[in-house]
Amino acid sequence: MTYELYYWPGIQGRGEFIRLALEEAGARYRDMGLLPRARGGGAPAIARLLAGRAPRPPFAPPILRAGRQLIAQTPNILLFLGRRLGLAPADESGRLWTHQLVLTILDLYLEVFHTHHPLGDGYAYEEQQREARRRTKDFLAVRLPKFMRYFERVIECNRGRGPWMVGARVSCADLAMAQVIAGLRYGFPRASERVLHQRPRLRELHDAVFARPRIARYAASGRRHPFNNEDLFRHYPELDR
Amino acid sequence: MTYELYYWPGIQGRGEFIRLALEEAGARYRDMGLLPRARGGGAPAIARLLAGRAPRPPFAPPILRAGRQLIAQTPNILLFLGRRLGLAPADESGRLWTHQLVLTILDLYLEVFHTHHPLGDGYAYEEQQREARRRTKDFLAVRLPKFMRYFERVIECNRGRGPWMVGARVSCADLAMAQVIAGLRYGFPRASERVLHQRPRLRELHDAVFARPRIARYAASGRRHPFNNEDLFRHYPELDR
Repeated sequence: MTYELYYWPGIQGRGEFIRLALEEAGARYRDMGLLPRARGGGAPAIARLLAGRAPRPPFAPPILRAGRQLIAQTPNILLFLGRRLGLAPADESGRLWTHQLVLTILDLYLEVFHTHHPLGDGYAYEEQQREARRRTKDFLAVRLPKFMRYFERVIECNRGRGPWMVGARVSCADLAMAQVIAGLRYGFPRASERVLHQRPRLRELHDAVFARPRIARYAASGRRHPFNNEDLFRHYPELDR
Repeated sequence: MTYELYYWPGIQGRGEFIRLALEEAGARYRDMGLLPRARGGGAPAIARLLAGRAPRPPFAPPILRAGRQLIAQTPNILLFLGRRLGLAPADESGRLWTHQLVLTILDLYLEVFHTHHPLGDGYAYEEQQREARRRTKDFLAVRLPKFMRYFERVIECNRGRGPWMVGARVSCADLAMAQVIAGLRYGFPRASERVLHQRPRLRELHDAVFARPRIARYAASGRRHPFNNEDLFRHYPELDR
């Protein structure tokens, strides 16, 4: 089975959560947004999928094609792949717990987007800088520590099972958590250092994920798009206080 | 099996999506947030659960207790209940499709919250009125029509199967969609009328859900908390233009 991932080129975005799962599992996939147009890829391929007449139309990327199935919504794709690729426990309650963590990690991810785009992406950052500052103030003082305290506790509750959140093996939740930590370090180098300073388990989880042989190879391959200020994680020094 | 739902009293909030599923299925459940403290309920019961030493701690309500399992995150609970209560197709791809729709409906739900709280709930509405006006402008002009066009198309693609989004039977996705339409009508009576005017299938879905015998009984029982301006759906006439 060769999967097809449809996601906007030029950023990591939500697509990166899917890529990390596929890479960790050594799955074969075509990253359609990165293929040349002449080979049926690029942004037009995504636009075609969104405008098309699929019986179960997706609302937005990322979209995964798995044989005849089209699956959208980041957590939904990870739910599907977690099972297929062995990145979640095999039992129902373990799968739900992993999914619950993924959903909470993606909630945090969305709150990071709101730090620089509290009024949504209908306005450029420059049109909402004042608002971004107020929103970020609350995010860094209240929300981020609350999330990080929670995730640290999750690893603690899974004590004795290595650096992971669920059981003794790496899961989709760990990959997503590591990606969010990496992004926070890019976007908020000062604030994230402060909050991670007291979270040794989260730091260890991050390092363990990016030291996984396949993830390390992927990161070194040049295929992992670098963080940049067109993406969801953005570095605006004026927000990182 | 008697389920226990833990959700803040005084509002419908995210808990209402769970209640509608339980009510439609005629499931037995205790609404713990509404029970008197003396009977182990109320906000303290929720606080205890959040502070407790559960091996798989929840981050926030709603939380469902099903036997020994504690399940959090609204879409995750609906994924679980959809299967248990027959509110999703039995096959994997149908379940994933239903879940994908639920996730997209809840994305819209969160965007409704951001209309009046673009800076998050760290600030009162009165402290972010100007921002709320700008965010709502984009929401009503761009985002809401886009979502509604999409959901109407989903029902259209399921043509000939009654008013529902997935197959021939009511699902969690339909219940959630109807709840969001009801909330939009409360919060934005003018704008929602405008956008629903051209969406006959969504109007029909809403009416069909609230005409289901058990849902109608629930709505008439006085147990369904009325919409109010402490809740996620809020009516601020200055935003509904």
